Amino acid sequence: MRSGKSKAGLIGLGTVGKSVVKLWPRADGIILKRIVDKDKKKNVSVRPDDILNDPEIDIVIELIGGLNDAYRYIKSAIEKGKNVVTANKALLALKGEELEKLALAKGVSLGYEASVCAGIPIIRGIREGLAANRIRSIYGIINGTANFILSAMEEEGIGFARALSQAQEQGFAEHNPTLDIDGFDSQHKLAILARLSFKTPVKLSDIYVEGIRRITRRDIIYARELGYSIKLLAIAKAEGKRLDARVHPTLISKDNLLSSVHGIYNACFVEGDACGKMVFYGQGAGGLPTASAILSDVKAIASKKMGTVPDFFVIKPIDELFTRYYVRFSAIDKPGVLARICDILGKHSISIVSVIQKERSGTRGVPIVMMTHKARESSMRKAISSIDRLNVVKEKSLFIRVEEVED
Amino acid sequence: MRSGKSKAGLIGLGTVGKSVVKLWPRADGIILKRIVDKDKKKNVSVRPDDILNDPEIDIVIELIGGLNDAYRYIKSAIEKGKNVVTANKALLALKGEELEKLALAKGVSLGYEASVCAGIPIIRGIREGLAANRIRSIYGIINGTANFILSAMEEEGIGFARALSQAQEQGFAEHNPTLDIDGFDSQHKLAILARLSFKTPVKLSDIYVEGIRRITRRDIIYARELGYSIKLLAIAKAEGKRLDARVHPTLISKDNLLSSVHGIYNACFVEGDACGKMVFYGQGAGGLPTASAILSDVKAIASKKMGTVPDFFVIKPIDELFTRYYVRFSAIDKPGVLARICDILGKHSISIVSVIQKERSGTRGVPIVMMTHKARESSMRKAISSIDRLNVVKEKSLFIRVEEVED
Repeated sequence: MRSGKSKAGLIGLGTVGKSVVKLWPRADGIILKRIVDKDKKKNVSVRPDDILNDPEIDIVIELIGGLNDAYRYIKSAIEKGKNVVTANKALLALKGEELEKLALAKGVSLGYEASVCAGIPIIRGIREGLAANRIRSIYGIINGTANFILSAMEEEGIGFARALSQAQEQGFAEHNPTLDIDGFDSQHKLAILARLSFKTPVKLSDIYVEGIRRITRRDIIYARELGYSIKLLAIAKAEGKRLDARVHPTLISKDNLLSSVHGIYNACFVEGDACGKMVFYGQGAGGLPTASAILSDVKAIASKKMGTVPDFFVIKPIDELFTRYYVRFSAIDKPGVLARICDILGKHSISIVSVIQKERSGTRGVPIVMMTHKARESSMRKAISSIDRLNVVKEKSLFIRVEEVED
Repeated sequence: MRSGKSKAGLIGLGTVGKSVVKLWPRADGIILKRIVDKDKKKNVSVRPDDILNDPEIDIVIELIGGLNDAYRYIKSAIEKGKNVVTANKALLALKGEELEKLALAKGVSLGYEASVCAGIPIIRGIREGLAANRIRSIYGIINGTANFILSAMEEEGIGFARALSQAQEQGFAEHNPTLDIDGFDSQHKLAILARLSFKTPVKLSDIYVEGIRRITRRDIIYARELGYSIKLLAIAKAEGKRLDARVHPTLISKDNLLSSVHGIYNACFVEGDACGKMVFYGQGAGGLPTASAILSDVKAIASKKMGTVPDFFVIKPIDELFTRYYVRFSAIDKPGVLARICDILGKHSISIVSVIQKERSGTRGVPIVMMTHKARESSMRKAISSIDRLNVVKEKSLFIRVEEVED
């Protein structure tokens, strides 16, 4: 770092960028020397090189999002010996390890508090506050859009499509919502959290991901009857030297704090071997909350350098997951059908805790809901695949994993 | 700070001290050079001067607790240019400002992550993570003993005395429990949090404090009927340039996350003007969780210096509080009694939302429970004092403040 007051340059003057400018008077005298945006109408420079080639600027804030350009600018900034602050979770999930190693080699900092849960200081909490811990597990509700949709389905008794429309009308979901509702945004954030917490390079493709499109109003009702909420959970757990990392809709006991996280809020449960169990809760998105995190990194960099991470774990394949499952079949209601389903489950060593079969009429499929004892994911997949080939089964069966998060 | 690896000295080898020693292998190569304890049987030095006068030691960890000796050692260490890490909340509440100023003058750090909520990184979260925010409010369940007692009363339907005995049997309450159940421990921690969050010197005596001894099993039941839990809450709110800071039993809506904090767990709600609403939740006590926080400070000091605080607010007197109240009277059950009570309340501009009067028999006082509209604390105190002088009133009336914590 250069001596004297830091000077910063901001690339990307969108919602978050504008909030950063608004909060800048609180940056302890650090000067925001240049702003760049590709939109000429914004009356700032359109050339990132104006920042990257300015020897006075020692902190570059990247807020353009996306992969290629952002990667190029960040890499160039680090190579020129500048510190970087970014909220770009997709890029960090893919290139975080490489960029962090480069920053380490160049003796500069890469700050990304804003990339996960916006203003909630979870990156700093884990990296510095929990630095003396071995992290055991992380369970995060880290996508506000998906949580808004599941909350609306639960609280208003509406279906997925209507809840998604509501989220879109209220500005909580994009026109193309796939990043949020198919779990990819949570997967990106989990890659970042897991790399930091378990000091392990985590390939994005190693994290199993499943979104919430197939959850119906009825699944929410059945789950509630069984004492659970359904949440899109990002999970990372140390199991010996293996890391169990996955994102999928999950049944969580109503007694658990995470089941009380409603609407667009985020919450992240973290367990360390010394600090015990912990939850960070708050607004996980928005201009000012994200800018709050950006500024916290800028101020930290202006006073010191940030830590980096070595290797540790290997990723556990989703097939080896061993947990309880909620399963919903849709089958013709005639004698022997339940027996055939149970027979197939039994052959795959899956035993059943309880069965709910609400509606006994109708010529099309009726829902049969089961809660299983712990079973292996690979067995469950094979069993479901066999069951779905039965001619009495009318629809692709749905299974939702149960997590017992102790709090 | 000296160049090269830091060396630390530990004064006080009790529960937390032993946990610090146990976690030390995770201190990134920082050397724990000396340990001091007044107990000769522990086979370490008994002279703090062995640490204070060792020029190689640049981090002193104070874990003896208490006021006089701890103050002397910390002051001496800072004056000798050493960094200090401490968990001593009582001392920090009384002398934190003075010691922090001294540390600033001497160019050393004073770390106290362990003084509030043990391993939960709330000090660092507020000081660094929320550094770009104006903090608006803090609502903390920051005493595990009191929360254990109130939780046991609510969950098991037992009275205060029995819940306290349970807490003592399970090691969650001291033989002399006054620090915890009379609110002083929460008051100490609030003084620390408020000074940090509102950048204001907070005198301990400026923080109104009231404990949980007068809460009965029935108050918990009545509160639940009204849709509330009773929690010992530490509150600090910015109101213009005045700071509303107080500790007392408080009614919190069952819908609020804080009402789901059970047993010995701690939770602290913090609202910042940029980051929005946030909750930090976790284990607020214990050897390893506290040591986790101590080590986080030691590691941070070894890599950088910590921030300090200027002035800002004045404290608002409790008499000027304006809130809703739960009030429990104990009065003889005869015609006109309720009217007389309501008349006095009315004269003090206190209006009533609802009345619960469960038991209409009995010659001694029967409980009359009211929920009021918002009223001034000074009016409430005057009204209660008048009501308690009525000869039909058989017992000192109890009022519990309601807080609407939005989450």
